[in-house]
Amino acid sequence: MVERAHVLIECEDAKGLVYKISKIFYDRGLNIDSNREFVDKEHKRFFMRTVISGLFEISELEDALASALPSSAKIKLIEPKEKEIIVMVTKESHALGDILIRHADGKLGAKIQCVTGNHDRLRDLVERFDIPFYHIAAEGLSREAHEEKVMERINGFSFEYIVLAKYMRILTPKFVKAYSQKVINIHHSFLPAFIGANPYKQAFERGVKIIGATAHYVTDDLDEGPIIAQDTIPVNHRLTWKDMQDAGRDVEKVVLSRALSLLFQDRVFVNGNKTVIF
Amino acid sequence: MVERAHVLIECEDAKGLVYKISKIFYDRGLNIDSNREFVDKEHKRFFMRTVISGLFEISELEDALASALPSSAKIKLIEPKEKEIIVMVTKESHALGDILIRHADGKLGAKIQCVTGNHDRLRDLVERFDIPFYHIAAEGLSREAHEEKVMERINGFSFEYIVLAKYMRILTPKFVKAYSQKVINIHHSFLPAFIGANPYKQAFERGVKIIGATAHYVTDDLDEGPIIAQDTIPVNHRLTWKDMQDAGRDVEKVVLSRALSLLFQDRVFVNGNKTVIF
Amino acid sequence: MVERAHVLIECEDAKGLVYKISKIFYDRGLNIDSNREFVDKEHKRFFMRTVISGLFEISELEDALASALPSSAKIKLIEPKEKEIIVMVTKESHALGDILIRHADGKLGAKIQCVTGNHDRLRDLVERFDIPFYHIAAEGLSREAHEEKVMERINGFSFEYIVLAKYMRILTPKFVKAYSQKVINIHHSFLPAFIGANPYKQAFERGVKIIGATAHYVTDDLDEGPIIAQDTIPVNHRLTWKDMQDAGRDVEKVVLSRALSLLFQDRVFVNGNKTVIF
Amino acid sequence: MVERAHVLIECEDAKGLVYKISKIFYDRGLNIDSNREFVDKEHKRFFMRTVISGLFEISELEDALASALPSSAKIKLIEPKEKEIIVMVTKESHALGDILIRHADGKLGAKIQCVTGNHDRLRDLVERFDIPFYHIAAEGLSREAHEEKVMERINGFSFEYIVLAKYMRILTPKFVKAYSQKVINIHHSFLPAFIGANPYKQAFERGVKIIGATAHYVTDDLDEGPIIAQDTIPVNHRLTWKDMQDAGRDVEKVVLSRALSLLFQDRVFVNGNKTVIF
Repeated sequence: MVERAHVLIECEDAKGLVYKISKIFYDRGLNIDSNREFVDKEHKRFFMRTVISGLFEISELEDALASALPSSAKIKLIEPKEKEIIVMVTKESHALGDILIRHADGKLGAKIQCVTGNHDRLRDLVERFDIPFYHIAAEGLSREAHEEKVMERINGFSFEYIVLAKYMRILTPKFVKAYSQKVINIHHSFLPAFIGANPYKQAFERGVKIIGATAHYVTDDLDEGPIIAQDTIPVNHRLTWKDMQDAGRDVEKVVLSRALSLLFQDRVFVNGNKTVIF
Repeated sequence: MVERAHVLIECEDAKGLVYKISKIFYDRGLNIDSNREFVDKEHKRFFMRTVISGLFEISELEDALASALPSSAKIKLIEPKEKEIIVMVTKESHALGDILIRHADGKLGAKIQCVTGNHDRLRDLVERFDIPFYHIAAEGLSREAHEEKVMERINGFSFEYIVLAKYMRILTPKFVKAYSQKVINIHHSFLPAFIGANPYKQAFERGVKIIGATAHYVTDDLDEGPIIAQDTIPVNHRLTWKDMQDAGRDVEKVVLSRALSLLFQDRVFVNGNKTVIF
Repeated sequence: MVERAHVLIECEDAKGLVYKISKIFYDRGLNIDSNREFVDKEHKRFFMRTVISGLFEISELEDALASALPSSAKIKLIEPKEKEIIVMVTKESHALGDILIRHADGKLGAKIQCVTGNHDRLRDLVERFDIPFYHIAAEGLSREAHEEKVMERINGFSFEYIVLAKYMRILTPKFVKAYSQKVINIHHSFLPAFIGANPYKQAFERGVKIIGATAHYVTDDLDEGPIIAQDTIPVNHRLTWKDMQDAGRDVEKVVLSRALSLLFQDRVFVNGNKTVIF
Repeated sequence: MVERAHVLIECEDAKGLVYKISKIFYDRGLNIDSNREFVDKEHKRFFMRTVISGLFEISELEDALASALPSSAKIKLIEPKEKEIIVMVTKESHALGDILIRHADGKLGAKIQCVTGNHDRLRDLVERFDIPFYHIAAEGLSREAHEEKVMERINGFSFEYIVLAKYMRILTPKFVKAYSQKVINIHHSFLPAFIGANPYKQAFERGVKIIGATAHYVTDDLDEGPIIAQDTIPVNHRLTWKDMQDAGRDVEKVVLSRALSLLFQDRVFVNGNKTVIF
C-alpha cells in the first residue's frame, strides 16, 4: 500500500475520460491533490497528470484505470522519489557544477550514479563530491567504439535519465535508441536557431540581440528532439562571441536545471516531437 | 439551448468534486474542451474553469451543478461573447490607444461603450473611432461630487468592467463598492514597489535596474487589489525618470492588454486578495 | 547656426580618434551632452555618437572633423528633428496601429507621410488619423510591376525610412537597392529561427517554449539584414499556432517601436551585417 | 611599467573633460581599448571608465590625470587582476555553490580567501573546495560581539569585497562603516518591494505574478544601498511560498554572479545611492 502517487495518463481523446478517471479515485476515497489535463486537438490526444493521496495499491489502481480506458492508453503510476541519473560531460563545468551543488544539498530530485567524460578535465570537480567519474577518451576510437565503452560503463548502474551537461559529441542513432526518451541535452542556443557547432559564434556573426539555451530530449536528428525548456537573455554589439559564451552559460545551466526539475517531478509528456508540461 | 459555455466553479474543497462535476457533463453527453482546476490548500478552496460544448440549457446545467455541489458554491455559466466595458482616462494615450486599436480590429474581446476623461485631451483620439467621449472635469468638485457625475454618466450604459487606462485619480470607497470586482487598473510599477504617486520618479531615485507595470482589481486600499498581470523591463543609469516613463509605457499597455484578455475570456478568479488565473 | 546636433562618426580605428574629435568640440567651446564609442576589433572599425550643444555651423564642424579624420571616415551631423517616413502594410493592424497612436500623440519621433497597402483592409484605420492611404493591389501584376507602382507613389513624398509594419510580400533586390539602409521590417520570429513564411506555424510545429520578434534592415537576403531589436515571450503546449500569433503580436509591435525609436534618434550604425546601437 | 589598466574617473562635470583625458593618453601613445562616459546631469557628475593599453607607469599617469582634472576628481588606475574576497553565509547553498563552482574553474574573477558562516551547515561544501571555512556562531552573543569575532577573523586576510551569499543577519552600522562600499548583498526580492524578512512569503501573500532578486551594496539602511543588478521571473497562483523560494534561488544566484562579475571588472561606480555601470 502506498500513500501518494503521480498518475500520468495519455490516450486517444474521448468523451468522459475525466469522469471515468476521477470516478476511480472517488470510489477508492482518494484525494486529488492536483490535476491537470490537456487535449491536443490536432492529434486527438488526451494527457492528464494527477497527484493522488490516500491509501492504495499501485497495481490495483493501474488495473482499474486500464479497464476503464481505451486499451491503447499509456498509464503510469509513480511513487514520488528521487530518480537515478547518469551525467555525461566534456570540459565545461557550469552545467555540471550546478547539478553537483543541488545534488550535494539534496535539492536535485535525483541521485547521480556517476559522471562520464570524454575528457578528464572535470574529474577533480566531480570527485570533490565523492561521485565516481569515468574518463572514457574518444581519441583513436570510432564513434561506435567509444559509445560502446560508455554504454558498458553506465549499464553497470541503474538509471532513468542520462543528462548531457555540455557533452560536446554527437550521439549515434544506436545510442539514442538504446536509451529512448531518457537522454536530455542542453543546447547552447534557442533552438531552432543556430543548430550545430558553436552557436555563440554563429549568433555573434549574425549580430543577434538575444541569445538563449534549450533543454531537449535527444533524438536521432541533431538538436531536433522535443523541447522541454528554453530561455533567452539580451546581448549587444559590445560582446565578442566569447563574451556571449560566458553570458550564455548562466542561461544554459538555469534552463537545464529547470528542465530536470520538471522531469524529475514527472511533469513532462512527450507528444510526437513536442512536450506537454504540467 | 446553447452550444458552448465557460463554466466557473468555486467552492470549499472536498473529495469527489471533479468526479461529481464531470459526471454531470458526461451524463448530458457534453464535451470538455478544456479544463483546469486549482486547490488553494491554505484556505481549502477549489477553483475550476471548464469549457464545455454540445447542446444544453444553461439553467438546467446550473441547477444540476448547484444540487451536486455545496450550497455555498459559486457557479457561473457564461456564453462566450464580447463583454461590454467603460474606459476611464486622464491624459496619456498609450493604454487607451492600444485598447482602441484592438477594438477597431475586433480583437479586444469587448465593446467599448464609452470613454470618460477627467481631462478633455483624449477626446479627439476617441472620437476618431466613433466612440462617445465624455469630459467630466474634476476642477472645483469634491471627489465625491466628481464621481457622482461619472457614475451618472456611465450608469446610462450596460457594462461588465470599468477599465482605468491611466486614470490618474484615486477612487473613493463608495465608487469602488458600487462596482465591486469590476474596476481594473494599470499601475505603472511592479507592485508592491513604488505604491502611490509618480512611481517612475521613485524608481529613478531608488536607482533600480528594472521597472514594471501591474494590472490589478481596484479595491479600497490604494494599489492593493488582487493582481492579474505584471511584467518588467530592464533600465539603467542612463535613463532619466522621463525616459523610464517612456520605456514603461510599452510595458503598461502590454500588461493591461494581457490582463483584459484574461478577464474577457473568463479566466480570472478573485481569491481573497489574490487571483487564480487559468 | 544651430544649437544642438547628433554627431555620427565611423572610420577605420586608429590611435587618438577620441582625442582629435573631442579637441574639435573643445576648441569651439561646445558641450558634449552624451558620448558613446565602440571599436569593432575584428574589423578595426571605430564608431562614435556624440550629442553636442552650443552654437555652431554644421558645415564648419563637418569640415573640421573631415580634415582631422581619415578621408574614408563617414561623418554625419544631424539636427535633432522628426524624421519623415512611409509605412507599408498588408492586413494586420497591430504594428500599424501602435505607430499611428504614437504619431497622433507626437511621440513617434517621425511624421508619417503616407501608408501604402497591398490590400485595402487598413484604409479605414489610417484615414481615421487623416493620413493618406494608398491601396496598391498586387493581383495580376508581376512583383516588379507592383513595386514600380509603389515606388511611383512613395517617391512623390520626401522620406528617410520605409517601415514595413507587417508588409507580407518579399521585396525585389531592385526595390531594396533603391532604398538602401532605409527599409525596416518587423519579422515575426526571433531570427534566425523560422525564416520565411508563417513562423508561428513553424514555431508551433517545432514545439518551442519561447517565441519572438525581430526588427531589422531589409537587404537582398530574405530576413537576413542587420538586426536592430529583438525580444521573446514564453509560450506553452496549450497555445495553438493562432494563439501564438496573437501572443506574438504584442512582441512584434513593441520590438518594432523600440527599433524605430532607436533609428529616429540616430542611435543605429550599420556595421556589415550587424548593427552598433548606442 | 604596466601594459594595461582600467582607468576610473569621477568628477564634477565640466567642458573639455574627454578632450583633456584623451590628450593625456594620446600624448603617451596609449591605446584606448574601450571607453564609456556618463554625465549625471541632475548632480553635474562626470563618470568615465577607459581601458588603456601600451606601456606606462601607473603613478606617472595618475599624476598627469590629477593635474589635468579638478582637484576633487577621484582617479583610479587598476591593473586587471583577480580580486580577493571574503564570503559570508548562513545555511543556503545555492549562491555560495555558484560562486564556488566559478572559483574552482578560474571563472569568478576573484580569489576566495575564506568563507564564514553563522551556522556550520555549509562547512562541508566549502571544505570540499579546499577553502577555509570558519563557523562563528551568533548564539548567546550580542550583535556587536558576534561581528567583533567575524571582523577579527576576516581581518586576518587581505580582501577587497565581502560577499554576503545569503547571509541572513543584519549588519550593524559599525560593521558597514568598517568596510564601506565593500559589502555586497543578494536580496531575495526585486527591491524596493518586500524589504525585510521572508520576502517570498510576503510575495506569496500579496499574490504577485513576478518575483525577483537584487544585488546591492550594503549601507546602514536595511536593503537600501545602491543597486548593482536585478532580475525577475514569472510566478503564478500554483506556487506556494516555498515553491517561490525554490524558483527564486536561480534568480538570486544569477543576479549575484552578474553583479560580482561587473564589480570584479571594475565596471561599477557608486553615485550617491545609485550605481553607474559600464
